[in-house]
Amino acid sequence: MTRWKLIVEYDGGPFVGWQRQANGPSVQAALETAVFRFAQEEVVVQGAGRTDSGVHALGQVAHIDLAKAADADTVRDALNFHLKPYPVTVLSATLVDAEFHARFSATRRVYLYRILDRRPPPAVDAGRVWHVNYPLDADAMHEAAQELVGQHDFTSFRAKDCQADSPVKTLDRLDVRRSGPEIHIDAVAWSFLHHQVRNFAGTLKLVGEGKWRRNDVAEALAACDRAAAGPTAPAEGLYLAEVAYDPDC
Amino acid sequence: MTRWKLIVEYDGGPFVGWQRQANGPSVQAALETAVFRFAQEEVVVQGAGRTDSGVHALGQVAHIDLAKAADADTVRDALNFHLKPYPVTVLSATLVDAEFHARFSATRRVYLYRILDRRPPPAVDAGRVWHVNYPLDADAMHEAAQELVGQHDFTSFRAKDCQADSPVKTLDRLDVRRSGPEIHIDAVAWSFLHHQVRNFAGTLKLVGEGKWRRNDVAEALAACDRAAAGPTAPAEGLYLAEVAYDPDC
Repeated sequence: MTRWKLIVEYDGGPFVGWQRQANGPSVQAALETAVFRFAQEEVVVQGAGRTDSGVHALGQVAHIDLAKAADADTVRDALNFHLKPYPVTVLSATLVDAEFHARFSATRRVYLYRILDRRPPPAVDAGRVWHVNYPLDADAMHEAAQELVGQHDFTSFRAKDCQADSPVKTLDRLDVRRSGPEIHIDAVAWSFLHHQVRNFAGTLKLVGEGKWRRNDVAEALAACDRAAAGPTAPAEGLYLAEVAYDPDC
Repeated sequence: MTRWKLIVEYDGGPFVGWQRQANGPSVQAALETAVFRFAQEEVVVQGAGRTDSGVHALGQVAHIDLAKAADADTVRDALNFHLKPYPVTVLSATLVDAEFHARFSATRRVYLYRILDRRPPPAVDAGRVWHVNYPLDADAMHEAAQELVGQHDFTSFRAKDCQADSPVKTLDRLDVRRSGPEIHIDAVAWSFLHHQVRNFAGTLKLVGEGKWRRNDVAEALAACDRAAAGPTAPAEGLYLAEVAYDPDC
């Protein structure tokens, strides 16, 4: 039995999310079907992050255990062959130790949130950005975002159904910058609460449009009350960009 | 009667092309329907470039004549409201003189061709790039592309059904550069022959993979024979990026 680390890109649009569910197609099930077609083995694909319905990934990480012997290029190419009907692609397959766990060994997760802040709706990138139909001030958003960096009780930015043991997390980075016609938010932490990045985006948008100031973000955080922060930004702007591991993983 | 210049973005995927045709939905017809719903006027939308089936636009330009009086923001927003079922968006509407013609007044057209040169297929950008499943040498492609810049008989890069009077065109720029995981080709000219940019891309890809050298491109151009150049690259990588006009337009 060998353990494989997979780096996976997907368009979350057609999926109910990463996790297998009864009510529709999931990225996990698409991958498990591809593994079965390749190796005739029923596996559970373990993902680093359970992205919600409509959330995309540029670098989700997963692991699988295979009895079938194959080289890394064959595993990647065969899975991609069997994934063809889906907007899911395996960027790389790497042999790892049996101790490696996509979720529990991860040391850092990087999310990207894309906002298109212009009056006309997106055409080429429809479904891939949050369309806010007026201009936002990226610099003000970046300034205010710094209130959230560090170790905090993030109850104000946590979904009701969040299953984490504690609302206390350490946010390593929260950078907001203009990228052409878009605003990009980069969020980096060891782990996140459910909806945390989307709640950051929905709150920082209030700053970008001038309704809130940096101090309002600080107060929302201190309130430890979900109702004190801004609304949850839509799934379509969110990307799981990267999952990092210790070098010896 | 007032003349409006429209800058239009679209995902070419679901369309038979810019031009109205009996066999499927066109961008032109989508715009004409939106104009009718807004103004109850039957107009012909004149486009600067008749993009083929599957070709995208970031900055197509079109003009329409309207009897209905409205301000520019209303024209843009109303057309976008009625375009909602389609991946077509009006970026701006501007009042212009009656002498302005989207096609005949254009002084420069800029096309972008996107190639994703990696083994795994695209997921998030499926249908928006040409997937070449091995790495290409962007620098070698750029060097070879310079053979095509200037005034030439471009018969070798012209589609059989091209209706231009002459195969002689002046290519102002043909730049090839790496952009992250992609290779971008920028092509600038007053006007292009049918399939010219896609035939450039298909030929430069031969250079990028090392099958051809710069001199082979020069020889293909000199042959004035379509069979001497490389194959036509797919529509899905091509974008009409910009159409420029004299400042007084």
